[in-house]
Amino acid sequence: MKSFSYANPTRILFGAGQIAAIARQIPESAKVLVTYGGGSIKKNGVYEQVMAALKGRSVAEFGGIEPNPTYETMMKAAEAARAAGSDFILAVGGGSVADGSKFLAAALAYDGDEPWDLVTGKAQIKRAVPLGVVLTLPATGSESNCAAVITHKGAGAKLAFMNPAVYPRFAVLDPETTLSLPPRQVANGVADAFVHVIEQYLTRPAGGMVQDAFAEALLRTLIAVGPKTLADLGDMDARANLMWAANQALNGLISVGVPQDWSTHMIGHELTALYGIDHARSLTIVLPAMMRVRQEAKHDKLVQYAAEVWGLKDGPEDARIAAAILKTEAFFRELGLPVRLGDARLGIDAAEKVAANLAAHGLVKLGEDEGVTPEVAVQVLTMAA
Amino acid sequence: MKSFSYANPTRILFGAGQIAAIARQIPESAKVLVTYGGGSIKKNGVYEQVMAALKGRSVAEFGGIEPNPTYETMMKAAEAARAAGSDFILAVGGGSVADGSKFLAAALAYDGDEPWDLVTGKAQIKRAVPLGVVLTLPATGSESNCAAVITHKGAGAKLAFMNPAVYPRFAVLDPETTLSLPPRQVANGVADAFVHVIEQYLTRPAGGMVQDAFAEALLRTLIAVGPKTLADLGDMDARANLMWAANQALNGLISVGVPQDWSTHMIGHELTALYGIDHARSLTIVLPAMMRVRQEAKHDKLVQYAAEVWGLKDGPEDARIAAAILKTEAFFRELGLPVRLGDARLGIDAAEKVAANLAAHGLVKLGEDEGVTPEVAVQVLTMAA
Repeated sequence: MKSFSYANPTRILFGAGQIAAIARQIPESAKVLVTYGGGSIKKNGVYEQVMAALKGRSVAEFGGIEPNPTYETMMKAAEAARAAGSDFILAVGGGSVADGSKFLAAALAYDGDEPWDLVTGKAQIKRAVPLGVVLTLPATGSESNCAAVITHKGAGAKLAFMNPAVYPRFAVLDPETTLSLPPRQVANGVADAFVHVIEQYLTRPAGGMVQDAFAEALLRTLIAVGPKTLADLGDMDARANLMWAANQALNGLISVGVPQDWSTHMIGHELTALYGIDHARSLTIVLPAMMRVRQEAKHDKLVQYAAEVWGLKDGPEDARIAAAILKTEAFFRELGLPVRLGDARLGIDAAEKVAANLAAHGLVKLGEDEGVTPEVAVQVLTMAA
Repeated sequence: MKSFSYANPTRILFGAGQIAAIARQIPESAKVLVTYGGGSIKKNGVYEQVMAALKGRSVAEFGGIEPNPTYETMMKAAEAARAAGSDFILAVGGGSVADGSKFLAAALAYDGDEPWDLVTGKAQIKRAVPLGVVLTLPATGSESNCAAVITHKGAGAKLAFMNPAVYPRFAVLDPETTLSLPPRQVANGVADAFVHVIEQYLTRPAGGMVQDAFAEALLRTLIAVGPKTLADLGDMDARANLMWAANQALNGLISVGVPQDWSTHMIGHELTALYGIDHARSLTIVLPAMMRVRQEAKHDKLVQYAAEVWGLKDGPEDARIAAAILKTEAFFRELGLPVRLGDARLGIDAAEKVAANLAAHGLVKLGEDEGVTPEVAVQVLTMAA
């Protein structure tokens, strides 16, 4: 285990009716900007609950944050916030609304000319306007971590940043807010959380027994509750466990002191940027092929994954690994997700295009051992054809 | 899963050499009171590392905090802190030093006449002097939770309090600081952490899949690394995993939204108060008997415990439970710990004395279902005879 420094300051308010509790978390005197996405919160009752909780406060709002939130949209949000004098952001939605609002929180507290510099790293985030999240889509874990991914349409770039200043002060996780999600979004969320765990777990043995066992616990939970949630959309027990598992999947806990991969995400990002396929669906196409291509480098952890996540403990190791990858694919398929380029109507030409974009973005040594070059990405996407 | 509110603000600084990092965590201008126990930190190099990290700062010190820290001792520490004008407490030691220092931190910020009221609940803790911990004994988890147990010798009482104001600002977990621990203390720490997890896990099914799986992960880790640490006192990998597991065992994470028991601890506290046996050793005597006596109420979770922690999945359920309890006992025995009253040279008369003290302390409805009355405590200790 490597040395680490870890704290997660976000207060989790979990359970039905917890939206009402935000009143105690936001200062009475705050001027709140409520941010949201396409407006589903106005149809499923979440908007009303939020406004009821904020009754009597100074509240402005900004809607229309898109999936893969853009710099351009969030700069409009910044204008709205400045016009309203907002000094507290309440993000209501999924990971995109949370991510966009993290950038907004940093941009509002920045006195430089070009807030995009905060994303590229050209400027350092030193402070941010306080932020809270009401989560409606269990998937990204953004509600209690300090990372965000922002797309600059003008520059054709999709970049991630991390800074402790943008940890949400609180995150409301009420499983009932997820009841109106379309099944496709539920499935995407399960897969997104699953691959988050894999990126922090399926690397090389590093002596992190608790980290490994926690990761395996989350993977097994997602495998159990994902299909259950889709089979019975009203199963509140499954929804609650899905929401908590997706949160724990990316709040920093399982990655302390151990290596991380993230090459599946980087290749997936390029697929999404090129072809507009859902983030989670890009991951379910890439991951099984990545496991196959990187079988040698990840051998020991693949054997462990087969045993601890899928119960495959007998027979030759390579056969166990092959079976575990097949089970991973079957799990994604059961969720209705693609596992081949063809499932998303993409051809093998995607491989070279993704590799070219990875190279153009300087992403030429990915993975826990920097072994995923653009050439390896071509192998992976060829395997996924 | 029940609703919950959870945050843990303590920054964990994990790994060899992390004591040096406390310099960045304590304000330059702080007047630090370093608190410690019997002086082992002066023999194993930890004291020197702490003082080197605090070089140039205003530092006073208070040693002599005993196991089961007393109100009387900590009031002397308060005098020392006031004399030195201390405004930051740095607790260096195990759970007793951390617990005592939490009380000290609250007492120093209290303007009432009788700080003991903060422990009994007669007065409310509203603030505390900031506190950091350098942990030298993995066991209690006190380094990153907001609970403490304090003994009032004069009043013959041993009471726990919890308050968010006493969360340590940071906790240094350097496995190397544990190398000089006597094997008895290592074994006690493993058992203490193990029973902490059991108290939050072995109750009734409550739909907390992640909580259950995290608890099982910690139990399996402790079962693996406990004997390993004792077999090879220089095994740093085992020590690191033990230290991280003991921390995660009682930082609030695994108990969110699920029932808790703690009856083994309450009975154990009375055994310690009456006969002076080590805290952890009181727990290893009580727990197997508690599992047997409470087999009906805990049936479903005992079956799960047998399967997920000990791999016992075949045969009649009662046989699996019996085997799991025997394995629990064998694990404690392997650590050199007592599992019967007789192992600690106690007789069956302890049963009635403990029951009388539980009744005298108002502890008459313990456990997740309030099913552990003083009469049940007698059954448990009779079973442990």
